[in-house]
Amino acid sequence: MAGLVEVAMNNATTALLTADLTLAEKVIADDAIIDEIQHDLDARTINLIARQSPVATDLRTLVTSLRMSADLERMGDLAHHIAKAARMRYPATAVPPELSLTIEEMGRVCVKIIDKTTTVLEKKDTELALEVEKDDDEIDSLHRKIIQTLLEPTWKHGIETAIDMTLLGRYYERCADHAVSISRRVYFLVTGSYANENS
Amino acid sequence: MAGLVEVAMNNATTALLTADLTLAEKVIADDAIIDEIQHDLDARTINLIARQSPVATDLRTLVTSLRMSADLERMGDLAHHIAKAARMRYPATAVPPELSLTIEEMGRVCVKIIDKTTTVLEKKDTELALEVEKDDDEIDSLHRKIIQTLLEPTWKHGIETAIDMTLLGRYYERCADHAVSISRRVYFLVTGSYANENS
Repeated sequence: MAGLVEVAMNNATTALLTADLTLAEKVIADDAIIDEIQHDLDARTINLIARQSPVATDLRTLVTSLRMSADLERMGDLAHHIAKAARMRYPATAVPPELSLTIEEMGRVCVKIIDKTTTVLEKKDTELALEVEKDDDEIDSLHRKIIQTLLEPTWKHGIETAIDMTLLGRYYERCADHAVSISRRVYFLVTGSYANENS
Repeated sequence: MAGLVEVAMNNATTALLTADLTLAEKVIADDAIIDEIQHDLDARTINLIARQSPVATDLRTLVTSLRMSADLERMGDLAHHIAKAARMRYPATAVPPELSLTIEEMGRVCVKIIDKTTTVLEKKDTELALEVEKDDDEIDSLHRKIIQTLLEPTWKHGIETAIDMTLLGRYYERCADHAVSISRRVYFLVTGSYANENS
């Protein structure tokens, strides 16, 4: 699931920046695959709880897996929203030149966070989980940069594009938040304490 | 939890429309109570699963309760975001006069949806769960109305207010989405089928 979400977010960003309708359509269609995996994964998790009556760490791990699948499903939705923004503005490019690099960077950092989160999941790597927290600061800073660009007196793309950019910034930010949440859950399962007390 | 979320959303909307800083601060502070109830509720749910080894409907109900508490926690966050928008613009009112009625209506419909969802939870009322689906269409239509107002050539409040209104509209919409999701979960638990196949 995490791998598919990473591909979806990467493709959604490319579709957005290059007005690639085919790629946008692919991200939109493939979201159903992520939803189906979640459905199947959750059914298997609940089945395991029912059959094995797990307690303590085993039960906590299974409950956490339900929460993480919900995070990943939502991350897929957000990639889907970005792809829909690309499709809505086609054949134009949704992102104006002044913001192209910032959105590209936001997509890159978001994909990096998802990639690290996938490794955190695979390897239970708590050091990497802490790195993900720091990477999320980059996303927040890029998000602020978008808003600052929209507020510059030289902004010439009007309200509609400003609305698009506000929502796109929000989608990337929320997607990264969910990845951070997954990394924190793994961190907590492994160490028994929170990576960030303010979480 | 649902009752507190309803109060939070009602107060957040009043704080936003009347620039009431005290009320905004209260919503922001009280979000910690909602988070704490979720934490306690989830701990009790997991404890029940561990001690009673439930299967079939009992287990599904407990798993659904974990999902619903996550929805409610997020709805509290969104009320908190709205209250923060009120605080950020204080002593000014965040919402310009042209959008005041629409935001008021959005808040009203959102609170109505949360109120009905609370009853759906208490009474397992499947008829009311279907009503919530329809009420959500009102939210979507109000959300479109906000965007249309921002795009009118007569819009004179600039980009910053447009960004605020875009995000506020999104917060109400997402909050209603989570309430709909809770109603659907109850509907599914009671009837064994989905209220909306496209969900």
